[in-house]
This record gives sequence, C-alpha cells and structure tokens, in this order.
Amino acid sequence: MNSTDVAQISVTILSDEADDIAKAISSQLDDVGNILCSSDMLDSPTRAQIHIQKVATSPDEIDHDSVSILLADPDLAACIVEQCHNLSWCQSTWAGNAPLLRAPKRDYTLTGVKGIFGKLMREYVFAYLLQHARNIKTFSDNQQSTPPIWEAAPRQPLHGQTLGILGLGSIGKSLIPVAKVFGMNVVGLSRSGANINDVDAMYTPASLLQFAQHADHVVNLMPDTPDTHDFVSYSFFKALKPHSIFINAGRGSAVDDLALVECLDKGYLAHAVLDVFRQEPLPQSHAFWSHPKITITAHTAAESQPSDVASVFLANAKRYLRHEPLHYQFDFDKGY
Amino acid sequence: MNSTDVAQISVTILSDEADDIAKAISSQLDDVGNILCSSDMLDSPTRAQIHIQKVATSPDEIDHDSVSILLADPDLAACIVEQCHNLSWCQSTWAGNAPLLRAPKRDYTLTGVKGIFGKLMREYVFAYLLQHARNIKTFSDNQQSTPPIWEAAPRQPLHGQTLGILGLGSIGKSLIPVAKVFGMNVVGLSRSGANINDVDAMYTPASLLQFAQHADHVVNLMPDTPDTHDFVSYSFFKALKPHSIFINAGRGSAVDDLALVECLDKGYLAHAVLDVFRQEPLPQSHAFWSHPKITITAHTAAESQPSDVASVFLANAKRYLRHEPLHYQFDFDKGY
Repeated sequence: MNSTDVAQISVTILSDEADDIAKAISSQLDDVGNILCSSDMLDSPTRAQIHIQKVATSPDEIDHDSVSILLADPDLAACIVEQCHNLSWCQSTWAGNAPLLRAPKRDYTLTGVKGIFGKLMREYVFAYLLQHARNIKTFSDNQQSTPPIWEAAPRQPLHGQTLGILGLGSIGKSLIPVAKVFGMNVVGLSRSGANINDVDAMYTPASLLQFAQHADHVVNLMPDTPDTHDFVSYSFFKALKPHSIFINAGRGSAVDDLALVECLDKGYLAHAVLDVFRQEPLPQSHAFWSHPKITITAHTAAESQPSDVASVFLANAKRYLRHEPLHYQFDFDKGY
Repeated sequence: MNSTDVAQISVTILSDEADDIAKAISSQLDDVGNILCSSDMLDSPTRAQIHIQKVATSPDEIDHDSVSILLADPDLAACIVEQCHNLSWCQSTWAGNAPLLRAPKRDYTLTGVKGIFGKLMREYVFAYLLQHARNIKTFSDNQQSTPPIWEAAPRQPLHGQTLGILGLGSIGKSLIPVAKVFGMNVVGLSRSGANINDVDAMYTPASLLQFAQHADHVVNLMPDTPDTHDFVSYSFFKALKPHSIFINAGRGSAVDDLALVECLDKGYLAHAVLDVFRQEPLPQSHAFWSHPKITITAHTAAESQPSDVASVFLANAKRYLRHEPLHYQFDFDKGY
C-alpha cells in the first residue's frame, strides 16, 4: 500500500460519554491514527487516519468553526449545529435523532447508530414479558411471607400468545426470532404494512385497532415523528385484553399518558412497562411513578455502549473517506 | 371403517388432578368413547374406544384387581402397583418417575409425559436469567423509593455469555434455541458427552469442573438417578463465577444444600433459583427460604396441564391397541 491510500479526518466528540467514546476509538487505532482492522465492521484495507481534535461534554466547549465532522449525542449537537458552518457529517451516538431532525439545519449528512440495539432490546422486552408470564412477583411475595408460602401461583405461558410490534425497523425486527422461538405468534404495524418474514399479519396505521385486537401484548418501538405523536391512545388501550402487557421502548411522545392511566385503572389492560417519557427524567411528581400497574425503567432498555458507538463511527469514517454512502443515514424529510 | 377396527381399553385414573384429566380425556372422545382426531398427536384413523372405569385422587379408592391400565401420578401409583397383579401399562402424568422406578415391580410398561415440558421450562429459565441480567429488582426498588430514583442501574446482557445445561434430554435441549437466539454460547454435560447440534462444547460427568468453569450460568435438568445424587456439590459451586446464576429445575437430590448456601455466602456464585428440593413442600424452617441470594418457586417450573396429559395418554392408547411401541417408555434398568 502506498501513501496515496492514506487519508485523514479530524473529529470533534461531544457527548455525556465523550471520554469513554474517545478511548474506545483510540483502542481501535494504531500509533499514527490508522484504523486497526480488528472490528468486523471494517472490511477494507484502505488506511484512514483518525485525528480526535476535541473531546467535550458540553456545547460551550466547542469552537464552532473548527467542526467539520462531529460525533455527538444529538441533544447536545442540536445546541451547536446552526453555528457550525463547516459541518459536513454528524455521526450521532443514538438510534433516534429527533433533536437534530427537528432543527432547521439540513446541509450536512446525519447518521445514527443502528444494528446494536436489537440484542439489548430483545432482552429487555422478554425480561418483562416473562416476569409477568411467570408471575415472579407473587412467588417472591410468597417467599417473603412469614411463614413462607409454598404455592403454585397462577401463570400464563407466552407460548401460543401473540406479540404485537408497533414499528418494524431493525430493533422491532430483532424481537421476531425470539418471539418465534418461544412459540408466540407475531403481528406488526408499520407505515407501509408490507409483509415481513415470520410476521403472521401486518397492519397499517389505519388499522391500529384491529392490530390491538389481535395482540396479547404490544411493544411500541416507533420513532419520534409527527405521525406517531399520541398514536397510542385511549381507543388503542381499550382494544387490548385484560391480561395484556404494553411496553413502550420507542418514544414517550407516542403515548397518551392520561389515557394509559385511565385504561389501566379500568382494567382494559393488565400492566404497562415504560422506558421512555415525554419528559426525561420522568418528573418525581408524575402519576406513573406510583401507579401499581406501571413499571418504570429510566430509558435504559437499549443503551449504546461507547465501544459500539466507536465501531459504527470508524466504519462510517472509512466509507466517508472513500466517498461511499454512509451507513444508517437519516432522511430529513421522512424524519427517520 | 368396519366394526373389527374398534378396540376398547378401560383406564383407571389416579391423580391429584384426576377430575381435570378425566374431563380433558372426555373432551377428546365422541359420545361412544371413540378418540376424536382433533389432536395433532393422533395420526391414524383407527377407532379406539376409551372407557374411564375409575377416577380417584387417593390410592385407597382403587380396586387393585380391576386395574390393567393406569393413568397416574407416580407417587400415588407407587402405593398400589405391587398389589395390581393385572397391571399391564401405567401412563405416568410426570416427566420424572423415580417413585415407580425405585419400586421392585417391573412386569409392566411404564411411560412418562414428554415433549410438553420444554416450552414451559424455557420460559421459566429465561424469565429468571433475564430478571438478573436486566437487574429488575433494582429498577423496582428505585421506583418504590421516596422520592423515586431515575437511575441507569447496572445490567449485564445475556448476549455473549455462556449457558451451561446439566442434562440434555428433551427438556434440556429445548433451552438451546432460546439461548442461541439471545446470542449466548451453550455448553452441556451428559452421561455420554455426545455432540449435540448447536451446543458449543459437551462434557461428561468426569469433567464437571471444566464444564462449570466454562459456563456463566448453569441450569440443572438431570433426572433423579443414583448417579446424580449430590452431583452438584461444593467443588462445582466453587468453580462458578461471582456473577453466575444457578438454576435447579431437575431434582432436589442432585444438589448439596449446605454447600450451595456456603458458596453463595462466600460469593462463589451470585444467586440460586430453586424449583425442586429434597423434601417438598420445602419445610418452613429450611434455610433456603430466607436466604437473600436464593429464589424459591415451589416446583412449578414446568407443570403438565391436564390437557397435555390427556393428549399423551390418548396417543399412547392408540399405539397400545395397535400393539405398537409406546411413546416415552422408561427403562427400569437405566432409571430413565
């Protein structure tokens, strides 16, 4: 390989986890900044020197004019992108990027992190579905009793039940093989309603209530777009079943909070497991916290790890230098 | 079909759930006792009339001489089989049949219930593995706090970890595809150590400690035989990891109770989830009940449902009438 194969890019890192991400990137570079080919996401021998020019946790630390390539949490990036006139590419550290997609600036390439959340999300979703299926709380209460209680508390197997998935991007799709291996049926809802392998029936937004009627449990994984605001509303919850679990791990804006509480109180569904909220952290005064039929998990269902973010960034950096289309690119018009 | 195709058998039902099993059988018969072919386990058009001659929950109710075919809980059947001189076939309602395999009487065919427990066991095992992986207890405690705590409590994904399975009969094998779909590695231990599809490494009883060293979490599903008594002992637990979960859903006799408590106290493993015990119900005074690192589930991991027992019995009844080998037959010499 001769020196003409070497190209260099300078990146500004702006993230709550900036230090950890910078370390994770450095661990995948050699002494002169060349990307090591240890990651399976790096499939070409082209050398690409990466120069980390700034590592910041606050937008105040950024020299706007120096930013051409930004690796950033989208909520922090949204504070500065309007001023970054030389910005050509922003690699976000998140899957969802509403803060940047809502901003007027659009003259740059925005890429997200994908392909790493599915493996975490499927553990989250099935942890909570199985917790209810196996009635873990009652067995625990029985053990804590004085004297302890030996009892076959009622359970309801997932086997034979139907999982409904709202939003079938890469994360939503990752649930399908797990549901199938547990012997569940799967129904899905997406904008197009197009068939998906191993999904027994697909619905469009216009047939939301039929979707709800066919599902035992529902997981929302829709992105935050104007179309999904308040999409999961009173009539949806009313169409569920008294044993239904509703899991929201998409975005809080999709759910009508008051309707959810009212429908839980009326017994239209059994329980809600909520990871995302309209305001985060969820305010301490919010009724969700103390509701006996609501479980709250602090936006932790599928958190990207610094090493995952580094791998996605470096793979895209090589593509950027080769002028190839970047992975996980957002369409500002569609909003996802 | 002419009348020569019709054969009849009379069955005595002796079970804690005798009434429910009798009802489940009747629901699969027509008015004159012919087996309806609704079950997918019934694959032949031969007519077989089933006559339920006795439905009993206690051994005292049984007229020994009238018993030729018995559908029974094995602990109850063990009280009467020596006196049942006309017994030709006993269909047990359980998967494990130690009470009958230990009895001297061997001049009859003993069949168990299989093929229906795997779907329940995999939900049990992964419910508890995921409960720990996702740290559900800490999130719950945080929500119950005053004021509530919004915190990303530590989690440890199953993805990339290794599940160890002790005993790879049909139930143990049912865990393999679930572990794989969650991205886990699988190691197994069986008497033969023979290779099994999708199991990354197999061990024999002589290499129990190597097996333990290679597993992050271990599920015991070995049957109750003399070879498995106290098989899971101090040295085994000591070879596990500080984050290891040990699940016993096989038989209580396999585990050295004192060694387990000592090794939990010393931090050699993180937690034990126990469904089976040397004495059941587990005595209220037993140290397991109040141990903070032990979860107790009252022998409910995989309970056969009356409808499942009825289906297995009727499928075998047809084979019996056709003089075909019965499904799930036990070998008195091997003990399984």
